[in-house]
Amino acid sequence: MALIGQEVSTDPWIDIPGEVIDVLRSWRPTPLVRAERLEAALGTPARIYFKDESVSPAGSHKPNTAVPQAFYNKVEGISRLSTETGAGQWGSSLAYACSRFDLECKVYMVRASFEQKPYRRMMMEVWGGSVEPSPVDDPSHPGSLGSAISDAVRDAVSRADTHYSLGSVLNHVLLHQTVIGLEAKEQLAMAGESGPNLVVASCGGGSNFGGISLPFVPDAGVDILAVEPSSCPTLTEGRFDYDFGDTVGLTPLLPMYTLGHEFVPPSIHAGGLRYHGDAPIVSNLVQAGRVRAVAYPQRKVFDAAVQFARTQGTIPAPETSHAIRAVIDEALAAKESGEEKVILFCYSGHGLLDLAAYDDYLHGRLIEV
Amino acid sequence: MALIGQEVSTDPWIDIPGEVIDVLRSWRPTPLVRAERLEAALGTPARIYFKDESVSPAGSHKPNTAVPQAFYNKVEGISRLSTETGAGQWGSSLAYACSRFDLECKVYMVRASFEQKPYRRMMMEVWGGSVEPSPVDDPSHPGSLGSAISDAVRDAVSRADTHYSLGSVLNHVLLHQTVIGLEAKEQLAMAGESGPNLVVASCGGGSNFGGISLPFVPDAGVDILAVEPSSCPTLTEGRFDYDFGDTVGLTPLLPMYTLGHEFVPPSIHAGGLRYHGDAPIVSNLVQAGRVRAVAYPQRKVFDAAVQFARTQGTIPAPETSHAIRAVIDEALAAKESGEEKVILFCYSGHGLLDLAAYDDYLHGRLIEV
Repeated sequence: MALIGQEVSTDPWIDIPGEVIDVLRSWRPTPLVRAERLEAALGTPARIYFKDESVSPAGSHKPNTAVPQAFYNKVEGISRLSTETGAGQWGSSLAYACSRFDLECKVYMVRASFEQKPYRRMMMEVWGGSVEPSPVDDPSHPGSLGSAISDAVRDAVSRADTHYSLGSVLNHVLLHQTVIGLEAKEQLAMAGESGPNLVVASCGGGSNFGGISLPFVPDAGVDILAVEPSSCPTLTEGRFDYDFGDTVGLTPLLPMYTLGHEFVPPSIHAGGLRYHGDAPIVSNLVQAGRVRAVAYPQRKVFDAAVQFARTQGTIPAPETSHAIRAVIDEALAAKESGEEKVILFCYSGHGLLDLAAYDDYLHGRLIEV
Repeated sequence: MALIGQEVSTDPWIDIPGEVIDVLRSWRPTPLVRAERLEAALGTPARIYFKDESVSPAGSHKPNTAVPQAFYNKVEGISRLSTETGAGQWGSSLAYACSRFDLECKVYMVRASFEQKPYRRMMMEVWGGSVEPSPVDDPSHPGSLGSAISDAVRDAVSRADTHYSLGSVLNHVLLHQTVIGLEAKEQLAMAGESGPNLVVASCGGGSNFGGISLPFVPDAGVDILAVEPSSCPTLTEGRFDYDFGDTVGLTPLLPMYTLGHEFVPPSIHAGGLRYHGDAPIVSNLVQAGRVRAVAYPQRKVFDAAVQFARTQGTIPAPETSHAIRAVIDEALAAKESGEEKVILFCYSGHGLLDLAAYDDYLHGRLIEV
C-alpha cells in the first residue's frame, strides 16, 4: 500500500525511511567522478562528470528501488517477492534487497539467459534467491521478458504471502531512483560547479534516466538527453499512446511512447534497453519538449565503451555505454564550438558480467543493428 | 633499474612519483569499511574493519604494483611488458596499467584457464593487452604457472624493447602494496580507533598480506595473522629454505617457506593462493615469530564467503574469503572471551568473475581438499 501511495502521490517530497537509508548507505552516496582522462583524450573544453552507480553490490542503479520495495513489503507482512528478469540485473538486485530484510525471493529468468548467461543466476543464488527458467510450462521455449512477467505475476496472485515487484517504468520506481540526481546536484556544488548544462543517461524503461534527470527538470537552462538503441527506438520513433507494460497484456494500460507491446527488439547486448515502451513520466517530458532523445546503433556504442575503458580505466555496461556514446559526441561538438559546458551523465552499471559482449565486438562478431 | 633499486633498498621511506599517484587516485584511497552487519550476525563485541581493495578497475589489490611497474619501465624507455597469469588477476591488472602509460602488454595465460575462464582474457583485451595460451609450443598441454613464467621470461630476454614483470613475492612488489596498510592506519585513526589489535590477510605469494600488514609490524601489541589454504600450506607446513621462485628454476634462489618448487597444489578456486613459496619478507617475519599463520580447507572458506555475502552484501573473491574465514573465527573467539578487540582485514578482491566457484559450492560440486 505504501508503494501504491507513492505511485499516485502528488507530494513534492517523500521521506526515505531510516531502515532503507541504513541499507543504502552501504554504498551511498555514490561517487561523482570527473572524467579527466576522457576529457584529455577528446581535447574538449567540456567538463564531464559521471555519477558512479556501478559501486552497488549488484553493480548497477537497480538496488536503489529494490531495497525500498523489499522494505515496504516486509513492513506490511509480506514474506516473499516474485519478479522476472532478463539478463539478471533486476533479479540480482531484488535478491540482494530481499537478503537484507529476510524475505524469500523468487525470480523467473528468461530461459535463453538462464542457460547462456549463468553468472547473474549464480549471483542471485549466493544471496539466497531462487531462480527458475521461464516459461515454466514449456522447457523447450527460449522465453521472453513477456513470458517471465506472466510467470511472476501468476506466482504472486496464487499465494497470499507473495507480492510481485517491478524494477522500472512505474512512478514509485523513478521516485526511488531520484536519489541519484539529488546526490549529484549536491556533489556538483561541492565541486564548485553552478550546475550541469547537459544531463545524459541511457533509457530503457526509464528508471536510470529518470533517476538522474528528474531533479534537474525544474532547473532552467539544463538540457536533458535520453539515449536509446536504434534497434529499439521507443522515444525517437515510437508513438505516444496507451499500451500494456508487458507483452501479454496483464498490466493496466499506460500512457507512453511505445513500439507496440508485441514488438520484439533484436538481441542486442544492452538487454536492459530492450523494452517496447517507456516510463509515463519520461514519455510525458519528451512529449512536452523538456527532454530530447537520440538513438545509436550497437557498434558505435561499443566504440565508445572501449574508448572509455582505455582512457578512464573502468569497463562500462553496454546499457551505460549508450550514454557514453552521446557524451563523447556532445563533448566533441563542444570542442568545435569552443563551449566550456558541464556535462553530467549516469554511469548506471559496470560491464564485468558483460565481457562476452566486448569479446564479440573486439573479434568482429557483433550483430549489425 | 629503479625497481631493482627498490628491491635492495634499505631506506625506510620511498616516495611515490606524481605520475603514479595520478593513476592510483582513480580509485585510491580505497574505503575502510566497518563490517557492522557481519558483527551483528556474529553477536561479537569485536569491531571488524576491512580495507576494500576490490574497487580498483581490475577488481583487486594487484594494480597497486602494476601501475608503478609500468611507470618505471616507461620512464626507462621500455615500450612493452611481458608477464604470466593463471586465472588472470595479475594479467588483467598489468594490462590495465600498461594502457595508462601506452605500453604494449603481452600476457602468457595458463592454457586451461585461457580456455575455461575466458572473462579475464576478455578484460585484458578490452584494455588492449595481447593474450596467448601457454605453453606456446604445445597446444595440447593444459599449462601451468611454471610454463607461463618460462614463456614470459623467454619473450622478454629475446626482445630489447621488452621487460618481464612480476606481480608478487619480491620486495619491491610488497613495497608498492604497503599503500594499503598505510592508508588503513590513517583511516582507523579517523574512525576514532587507536589501532587494530589484530590484522588479517590471505597469503599466496605475499603481496596482499604484506601490503596491509607491514606498516603494522613495528607497532607493539598488534597481532598479525596470515591465512592460507590447507591444500597449499606453505607457511604452516613448508620448510624454510632457499628455493626457486618458479617451477622450472629460471629465477634466482630465494630464502623462503616453501613446499618445493615442483609442488603442484590441487585445483582449488583460490588460484591466487596456489603458490609453492612465500615472499622472503613474509617468510622472515613468520620465522621470527612476529607473524603467525593458519590454514583452512576450501569448504570452510566458502561457508564464510556466503555468510559474508548474505550479511555484508558484497561477494568476495575466493582468495579474500580465506581472510574472512579467519576473521569470523577470531570474532567468535572474542565473543567467548568478551574481548572488544579491533580486527582489520584486507578485502583484497571481489568475486564477480569467480561466481562459478560459488555455483560449485552451492550445488555440492566443490572438491574436498
